[in-house]
Amino acid sequence: MQTDPLPSWNEGISKSSILHFVEAVTTANGADFVPPSERIAVFDNDGTLWCEKPMYIQLDFTLRKLAAQAEGDPSLRSKQPWQASWEKDFDWLGGVITKHYQGDDSELQVLLAGILSLYEGQAVEQVEAAARDFIEKEQHPTLGRAYRKCIYQPMLELIRYLEANGFVNYIVSGGGRDFMRGFAQDLYGIPRERVIGSTVAYRYVESGDGGDIVQQAELDVIDDGPGKPIQIWNVIGRRPILAAGNSNGDLPMMAFAGGASLPALRLLVVHDDADREFNYVAGAEKVISVTQTLGWTAVSIQRDWQKVFPG
Amino acid sequence: MQTDPLPSWNEGISKSSILHFVEAVTTANGADFVPPSERIAVFDNDGTLWCEKPMYIQLDFTLRKLAAQAEGDPSLRSKQPWQASWEKDFDWLGGVITKHYQGDDSELQVLLAGILSLYEGQAVEQVEAAARDFIEKEQHPTLGRAYRKCIYQPMLELIRYLEANGFVNYIVSGGGRDFMRGFAQDLYGIPRERVIGSTVAYRYVESGDGGDIVQQAELDVIDDGPGKPIQIWNVIGRRPILAAGNSNGDLPMMAFAGGASLPALRLLVVHDDADREFNYVAGAEKVISVTQTLGWTAVSIQRDWQKVFPG
Repeated sequence: MQTDPLPSWNEGISKSSILHFVEAVTTANGADFVPPSERIAVFDNDGTLWCEKPMYIQLDFTLRKLAAQAEGDPSLRSKQPWQASWEKDFDWLGGVITKHYQGDDSELQVLLAGILSLYEGQAVEQVEAAARDFIEKEQHPTLGRAYRKCIYQPMLELIRYLEANGFVNYIVSGGGRDFMRGFAQDLYGIPRERVIGSTVAYRYVESGDGGDIVQQAELDVIDDGPGKPIQIWNVIGRRPILAAGNSNGDLPMMAFAGGASLPALRLLVVHDDADREFNYVAGAEKVISVTQTLGWTAVSIQRDWQKVFPG
Repeated sequence: MQTDPLPSWNEGISKSSILHFVEAVTTANGADFVPPSERIAVFDNDGTLWCEKPMYIQLDFTLRKLAAQAEGDPSLRSKQPWQASWEKDFDWLGGVITKHYQGDDSELQVLLAGILSLYEGQAVEQVEAAARDFIEKEQHPTLGRAYRKCIYQPMLELIRYLEANGFVNYIVSGGGRDFMRGFAQDLYGIPRERVIGSTVAYRYVESGDGGDIVQQAELDVIDDGPGKPIQIWNVIGRRPILAAGNSNGDLPMMAFAGGASLPALRLLVVHDDADREFNYVAGAEKVISVTQTLGWTAVSIQRDWQKVFPG
């Protein structure tokens, strides 16, 4: 008897779709065989590999930095995004993201400018160390667990299962790449060169010790929406055959999987479990509709996951 | 008796530096041991892995495309860079690169604008296929050999030797990434996700078949000078321990290797063999000087390479 590679997945269409797909692409001489070099899997992070409510975990990290600045400089307390950070005005902050997915980026620009100012002049190693430290130590505000335990156990099992079958897994997230590089190896076993995300511009600063890579207060790449297939091509140069996401920003990446010549599995994590995680569709309306129309695989947290988080 | 892993290298300081360095970083419990995940080697392409005279091979590829346009449209024949391409005015063209390395980019902008216009609207697969086809079929103008045989046999042996010792090799070139991706696997055995180079901006064009990545007539990344360590961090996120280059544009990448905490080997290919390849220092004056001052490893084609090209 074989060991179940996906013990946290309930039996059902989602689990069997994954198992059948992996069997099909790894069966030598099969109609859907894909050589290992082309077995690329891409995973969104927020809402796909770990939870993103009540706000992005990176946003919590960032807001605490902004609040600490406002603590030291009272003049910042009447200026966004420092004001919302200082007052813990989560309605203003949550609204920024919701409006973004509705196509209104006006407040996102204000938030971004504040966030970007935090990074000016920071060496990349500092940024990663701060992210690692935060994820190690801080707690999720409502779930009663450490942030590092807010990753989805079923997705972790999927990553390991794919690896064992010759896949190469990448994170492709709208979140900050350098933030994620701080913990992607520890949390997901995904090495830093396989972390794709949004980035600020760098400058190279010479020194006697080989020089430093230093961040600037300027966006370089927004890895969301059509930016996801573009960054996949920039970094990997291969079309993924498995793409997992949960929001409208993942739609182009999920559509991009497979293409005309390769088989593809597209997994949409649907947040429908208010008891164990969260229940929401905001920001995912379009990708849910496309998933239904095109017959992609909708993964219901409530029905498909026997267990949500690591024990 | 062990087989010599570098048969095309003459005995001498360069060869022994390579052998000793690889032994040092792979000796478990040794003072300079580096774990495999950190054994990153980066190679410039033009003038480091294959020859770059009398002009960059990609420039030949590009000039033929421009000349073909001028063939079809006589009005282009009095406009640079179509004029030089049409008239085979290699003095104008060669001067552009020399001036670039002297800090004058005025003509480079004119050349680039012409080159960029070629790529507008091209699907990445088309660009790669054209590059692959060109390298397969065309001849070097003066060396009497196919372009695909203009790679340096000693460097190919070095790449294989490093691989066999757990290194991960990347190309980090000022040349076009999508051009190199067309043949990097075939010529060097370096997979497409490990090809870093200059790039144009992409756009993602939706289609029923998963959409296409299409080039635009706009530079995205110039992977030269300080851009090399920056792109190394963007794509790899690790500091290389071996860096090989040949021109001033490789100096920051070579300086970046190792850093404060890792050992490093820096190889500078010196073009001093007019009989078998070319003899020039233009564009390499500064990096030659730094190599001498800091005791990096100068690789003389004349003295260190028993054989230059594959048979």
